[in-house]
Amino acid sequence: MRAFGSDVRKPTLVAVVDLIRERGTVSRVELAEATGLTQTSMTNAIRKLSEFGFVREAGKERISRGTPRRLLRLQPDACYMVGVQFDRFASVGVLVDLGGRIVIRRELPVVGARDPDEALPELTEAVSDMIDASGVPRTKVRGIGLATYGPQDRDAGVLLTPQPTPAWRGYPLAATLSDATGLPVVIENDATAAGIGVQALGGASSSFAVVFMAGGIGGGVIVDGNPYRGATSNGVELGHITVDPNGPACACGNYGCLDNLSGPRAISARALAHPSLGSRLALGEDELANFLAVGRAGVAGDADAAALLETSIRHMATAAVTLVNMFDVGEVVLAGGAFTGFGGRYRDAIQDRLDRSVFVRHVHDVKVRLAERPEDAAAFGAAMVLLRSLLEAPGSAG
Amino acid sequence: MRAFGSDVRKPTLVAVVDLIRERGTVSRVELAEATGLTQTSMTNAIRKLSEFGFVREAGKERISRGTPRRLLRLQPDACYMVGVQFDRFASVGVLVDLGGRIVIRRELPVVGARDPDEALPELTEAVSDMIDASGVPRTKVRGIGLATYGPQDRDAGVLLTPQPTPAWRGYPLAATLSDATGLPVVIENDATAAGIGVQALGGASSSFAVVFMAGGIGGGVIVDGNPYRGATSNGVELGHITVDPNGPACACGNYGCLDNLSGPRAISARALAHPSLGSRLALGEDELANFLAVGRAGVAGDADAAALLETSIRHMATAAVTLVNMFDVGEVVLAGGAFTGFGGRYRDAIQDRLDRSVFVRHVHDVKVRLAERPEDAAAFGAAMVLLRSLLEAPGSAG
Repeated sequence: MRAFGSDVRKPTLVAVVDLIRERGTVSRVELAEATGLTQTSMTNAIRKLSEFGFVREAGKERISRGTPRRLLRLQPDACYMVGVQFDRFASVGVLVDLGGRIVIRRELPVVGARDPDEALPELTEAVSDMIDASGVPRTKVRGIGLATYGPQDRDAGVLLTPQPTPAWRGYPLAATLSDATGLPVVIENDATAAGIGVQALGGASSSFAVVFMAGGIGGGVIVDGNPYRGATSNGVELGHITVDPNGPACACGNYGCLDNLSGPRAISARALAHPSLGSRLALGEDELANFLAVGRAGVAGDADAAALLETSIRHMATAAVTLVNMFDVGEVVLAGGAFTGFGGRYRDAIQDRLDRSVFVRHVHDVKVRLAERPEDAAAFGAAMVLLRSLLEAPGSAG
Repeated sequence: MRAFGSDVRKPTLVAVVDLIRERGTVSRVELAEATGLTQTSMTNAIRKLSEFGFVREAGKERISRGTPRRLLRLQPDACYMVGVQFDRFASVGVLVDLGGRIVIRRELPVVGARDPDEALPELTEAVSDMIDASGVPRTKVRGIGLATYGPQDRDAGVLLTPQPTPAWRGYPLAATLSDATGLPVVIENDATAAGIGVQALGGASSSFAVVFMAGGIGGGVIVDGNPYRGATSNGVELGHITVDPNGPACACGNYGCLDNLSGPRAISARALAHPSLGSRLALGEDELANFLAVGRAGVAGDADAAALLETSIRHMATAAVTLVNMFDVGEVVLAGGAFTGFGGRYRDAIQDRLDRSVFVRHVHDVKVRLAERPEDAAAFGAAMVLLRSLLEAPGSAG
């Protein structure tokens, strides 16, 4: 079995803030040991973070011998970030403080089948309401991280997909939302955002993968502490790998895609096509709600619902083996609102398959777990993405 | 369409040597522009390389205005590296000079079903004979790069697989070969080695994937100029992702693996099971030779052979879409001896599938091509891996 190293490749300020958040208080010696930073880099980082008001002294730690160590902690109310995860069927907003606490959380309006000109004003208003309701002063809110599906042009802040309507492709998403709210906006892939959220909470391996399921299925990989991005930040499209070569054609151009066999829309459609399941479970038009109803009924013992849930789990386990065999990670984290209530079923079945089928299983363990609050992971992570963008351009962080 | 950046993240000396090799001669100005290195880093790099005797002045370039630029070039005979690709059914050795020229090339003994104590002395002798036959002085040969299948512990120089016999698992492969030859030995995944070889020849995208097929099928990814390694250098196991959930169980623990549906062993077994194909093509015990015979016959018009070849190509195209959707690369390069003679069929079919099915096809092109000398790519790359290990530990390079 191999050990996994520390997150030495994270940007310096991000690594320091994440570590203090994870541990609560730390001494400079602990920080240096855990991050691998040189004394000079660390001193500079702490000086900058102190200037921003992000970090402060928090008393001294008495250790057995030698001089007591001065401890550092975050100033949680130094700044706040909005995190939004939104797609066609699921949207969540959170306001997060520097310490990583979710101050307020809201279900937000979903995209549905609407054009951006219709969906975005509603989203803007809901975000604005959420900030007002939190009681946090506007001046302390530093921006919005927006996690959604791809393909995206992250730098430009636009989606490159014609889903759900052609008007979304190339629409100035970040710029429009920024103009409407007066806040900086960064966009991020939802599964990658969930990974960054999991990482910011601490305790994850330095290399892990995320299986994200909300309105659709996506994937994210954190390797040696940093998100895997590929050539254009559009990698790890887990929902659109073939898991059955005889499966249906997908709007993405591929066929037998995981999303079309395991995802909420696919399972909802199969439930509605069933002679009695739809009426038995009182299914409606919301495909994510239908999926959640099927999953709950399956767990509760409805045989027809259980069969659909099993199908979803089986294909996802196949994809999870592919994900690990491709990226060689030590952990798989399940995140997204579609795991709510019965994510444990997916976790256990995927763990069982990985234990038997992963190529590197004799080299190192690969553990599967549910994210803490899986339904908020991507929104929380999106807030952390915004924080990172501030920390990586430190001139703007003060 | 997005542009792909330069290889800014390569280790400095590697980036400089690769660039001079690619261009033949370069000025310091060109080097700085192409590598993105600072003036100081570049001056230091060139000084070190000159001390090693790797780089020398090569006259001046007269440009329209200003002082003529002094040109640099490699000193090709400054050092030589052995590259070996070996597996159960295919083994190739090359001796490569600093300029990237293959001085000599040999087919080497294959592993077959033998224990390391039997196979390695034969390999050692064959490598030794190859060096002698090249006429290159032993003192100029700096080491051996050994490319083979996984899982591996690269740092320790051991294989972590019980294939083909239990004695291979944990056997001190690099140390044994080093003791026997008196040369430093580094090991590398064969597909990753092929990627490094493709990169060293120049002209590749900064982010590309390799589909490697020799005795088995593997994958490699170069992203932003560096190999993707994952947690333990055992990523991109393309041969062991499921391409058909109803496919056969694999020795790796997974089922419906690409290698068991597309690879030389699978196609050889199916050809031998055919009522007449085995005798018609005079197939024997060498599974790679059988595969090559089937491929050639398929291209020449034998309908039964063509059907087997088509099966192999179809599954590989499915896997190639997965590879690109996972890693978001701009290019896929086919390498390995099993593409010899009919790699163009794979190339064209995979290109067609990527054009129709890849998730990012509206974001950027993804081009498929055959490696130059596909049968030598991994061995050549293994020699470059050895060179890189010298350059990354510059104290040992002189």
